[in-house]
Amino acid sequence: MSALAPVLDKLDANLDQSIERLFELLRIKSISTDPAFKADCRKAAQWLAEDLKSIGFEASVRDTPGHPMVVAHHDGEGPHVLFYGHYDVQPVDPLNLWESDPFDPALKEIEPGRKVITGRGSSDDKGQLMLFVEACRAYKQVHGKLPCKVSILFEGEEESGSPSLKPFLEANAAELKADFAMVCDTGMWDRDTPAICVGLRGLVGEEITVHAADRDLHSGEFGGAAANPIRILSKVLADMHDDTGRVTIPGFYDGVEETPSQILKSWEALGETDENFLGVVGLSIPSGEKGRSVLELTWARPTAEFNGINGGYTGKGFKTVIAAEASAKVSFRLVHKQDPARIRAAFRDFVRARIPADCSVEFHEHGGSPAIQLSYDSPFLIKAKQALSDEWPKPAVMLAMGGSIPIVGDFQTFLGMESLLAGFALVDDRIHSPNEKYDLSSFHKGQRSWARILDALTR
Amino acid sequence: MSALAPVLDKLDANLDQSIERLFELLRIKSISTDPAFKADCRKAAQWLAEDLKSIGFEASVRDTPGHPMVVAHHDGEGPHVLFYGHYDVQPVDPLNLWESDPFDPALKEIEPGRKVITGRGSSDDKGQLMLFVEACRAYKQVHGKLPCKVSILFEGEEESGSPSLKPFLEANAAELKADFAMVCDTGMWDRDTPAICVGLRGLVGEEITVHAADRDLHSGEFGGAAANPIRILSKVLADMHDDTGRVTIPGFYDGVEETPSQILKSWEALGETDENFLGVVGLSIPSGEKGRSVLELTWARPTAEFNGINGGYTGKGFKTVIAAEASAKVSFRLVHKQDPARIRAAFRDFVRARIPADCSVEFHEHGGSPAIQLSYDSPFLIKAKQALSDEWPKPAVMLAMGGSIPIVGDFQTFLGMESLLAGFALVDDRIHSPNEKYDLSSFHKGQRSWARILDALTR
Repeated sequence: MSALAPVLDKLDANLDQSIERLFELLRIKSISTDPAFKADCRKAAQWLAEDLKSIGFEASVRDTPGHPMVVAHHDGEGPHVLFYGHYDVQPVDPLNLWESDPFDPALKEIEPGRKVITGRGSSDDKGQLMLFVEACRAYKQVHGKLPCKVSILFEGEEESGSPSLKPFLEANAAELKADFAMVCDTGMWDRDTPAICVGLRGLVGEEITVHAADRDLHSGEFGGAAANPIRILSKVLADMHDDTGRVTIPGFYDGVEETPSQILKSWEALGETDENFLGVVGLSIPSGEKGRSVLELTWARPTAEFNGINGGYTGKGFKTVIAAEASAKVSFRLVHKQDPARIRAAFRDFVRARIPADCSVEFHEHGGSPAIQLSYDSPFLIKAKQALSDEWPKPAVMLAMGGSIPIVGDFQTFLGMESLLAGFALVDDRIHSPNEKYDLSSFHKGQRSWARILDALTR
Repeated sequence: MSALAPVLDKLDANLDQSIERLFELLRIKSISTDPAFKADCRKAAQWLAEDLKSIGFEASVRDTPGHPMVVAHHDGEGPHVLFYGHYDVQPVDPLNLWESDPFDPALKEIEPGRKVITGRGSSDDKGQLMLFVEACRAYKQVHGKLPCKVSILFEGEEESGSPSLKPFLEANAAELKADFAMVCDTGMWDRDTPAICVGLRGLVGEEITVHAADRDLHSGEFGGAAANPIRILSKVLADMHDDTGRVTIPGFYDGVEETPSQILKSWEALGETDENFLGVVGLSIPSGEKGRSVLELTWARPTAEFNGINGGYTGKGFKTVIAAEASAKVSFRLVHKQDPARIRAAFRDFVRARIPADCSVEFHEHGGSPAIQLSYDSPFLIKAKQALSDEWPKPAVMLAMGGSIPIVGDFQTFLGMESLLAGFALVDDRIHSPNEKYDLSSFHKGQRSWARILDALTR
């Protein structure tokens, strides 16, 4: 009999009290983006620090130029983990769409046998961060100690761009550096299937403006003779994909790796179809590289996307103008080892090669970050995967995400740590929207999941 | 000795008085687009009717739902011609850029030996329409009659879209129908070279909107899987020209004729270079079909132009959005016998063939009119060309225009008449702009030119 079983029993026994504790935290209106709630943000940080102290953590509220951080440490043997979550929440408007007060949490049965916790932050991210706190509490109650050395970082600006995070990590790198990070801000594949996110795509943003004549021209007078920047821009963009959906920029696929076949098989086993994935937004045909599933396309393949285009007369009616310029916003989602700087340079060369000699092009950079790709066979992830699989009806899946979670890159960059991204949100949690909720099963089995993960890591 | 010589002498003798008469007309603030000048428009019409009566025309001011028309008739032998001009003018703002009051005309010497008449409407079109009135006056003074039957139509809404013109032509077709029309609202090739315009390009305007997902998508979540309407639209537009600059829409060139080689040679002789033509707007390389001069490209070749494009996020900064829709305004300049309806249908087929099955496209029509192409060897034009060549230092050139002059199509459609387009404006006349002027040589030799044309037509 391991040390784990009594901890899981304790979590079961503690459930009602743990709900009460979450409700206390949910009642604090810690909306980070609205200065009116500055004091509430600090109150949430203080509440968390006090709660962590009550478990035996050395916890403190640390000032930043914005909202404070909560940092806590607890000694232990074995590996050192840093758990990350954020206590700030999104604004609640439009308030009239909420079925009950967003800051008066409640437990509701939404269908027979399915209870949910309602309220702003119940899923994103207060409910999720408390999972880990409750797991630690039960460990302490049962064993008087934690199974390993644990540090905790709770941020209060995640919903408002995390302006203080990087400086804080840099300034406190020695204190915060652990063997690996745990981030609980993601979701499950479905209600039965837990998920670990091992890939996050990177991003390169570019804005290009094609300049032709030095003024807008009349298309009667100059049409057929003068360069048309919309035509040039369309050609540049159209040239960027071939007929199979591949990006044609030379060197674009340098650093892109094929996803291991057993991973592809595990994704296939999820049963996601093109029709399901695209059907919710009214589409049905994948637009990316042919022969790859929508999951592979969005999780493990790079893209070139056109996010905006503008030129000439775009108002009502018609104007027979040949514009002086036209512009587009272009972004690239990167995977694996693609290098943002090289992608940007290759893109610019590609564009320049297509600009007529009497025209010009101007580039503006809009950010760039590499992809994050954890090793599918890292022992740390394998252990966590098994722990999750032990808790839930179906085995955990290792998936990737099409977007980015900046904290993961920051942990890598500033603290040299890899992250375990495991969370228990569901797609219908309505995070950032009215009537946010968190399934009681996520809250309960999520606590048990973190207890299992902590236990597994120490073996 | 013909009847012409004493008429030309009379015009020379009348010059000072004709300038005074033009000044009277220029002082009337007949701005058609601004309701504040409604009474001034009527005043200009009345002034013209009175002046024409004084020469012996049966002239009247005819009400329309907008500004009135002036219609005048004078009997005569031989062919029946209808002369068209417009007495309304453009607004004058920004007033502070005028060197003198736009409605206080003056005669100024702008360089040694070069005098100009200044004032709003001096060139467009009061100065030009008075040329013909003065030619008629001199004929009457010398011979007591006109060399042929003459009708005159002066419009007061040309600068505000001519809303009343078509209904008026339809309602008065029997009265206004002549053997051919004469329109004096165009320019010379240069100060020494008069021009007759024999081709005006037609126009088909289309607006297309490509619809993809039923909402804007996050490019992290859906990029690589969901159709991007900007990509689809770019491909459609890029496909519309081949590498030689030809339009690729099937059937697009049906009805396009090659310009006679002697006409091309006469255009070559004008000495216009790509660098000259495009240099004034900061360009140098013709963008149309390769192997054709800028004059042929803009006067005698059809085009597909993109006049506007819009989709996704176009504000400051960046948004990783995949738009739900993207749209473009596309226009075609038509020549010769290209059929607007067939071009529109072929374009729509071309677009539809490039829309993925799970996306859709919407079309909006923005007008369509065929090209006007007069025969280069029409006896009427040949005579007029000779008459002009007799008056000016260099022979008249038959050219075309890239834009359209709706009245010419209306005369063809409603009255079954072809038009002679001859005018004496110069490119530096600043029509529609502050400090509009008309060269005294245009005003003097223009009168003589119309006298010569009238004389030539009767032979």
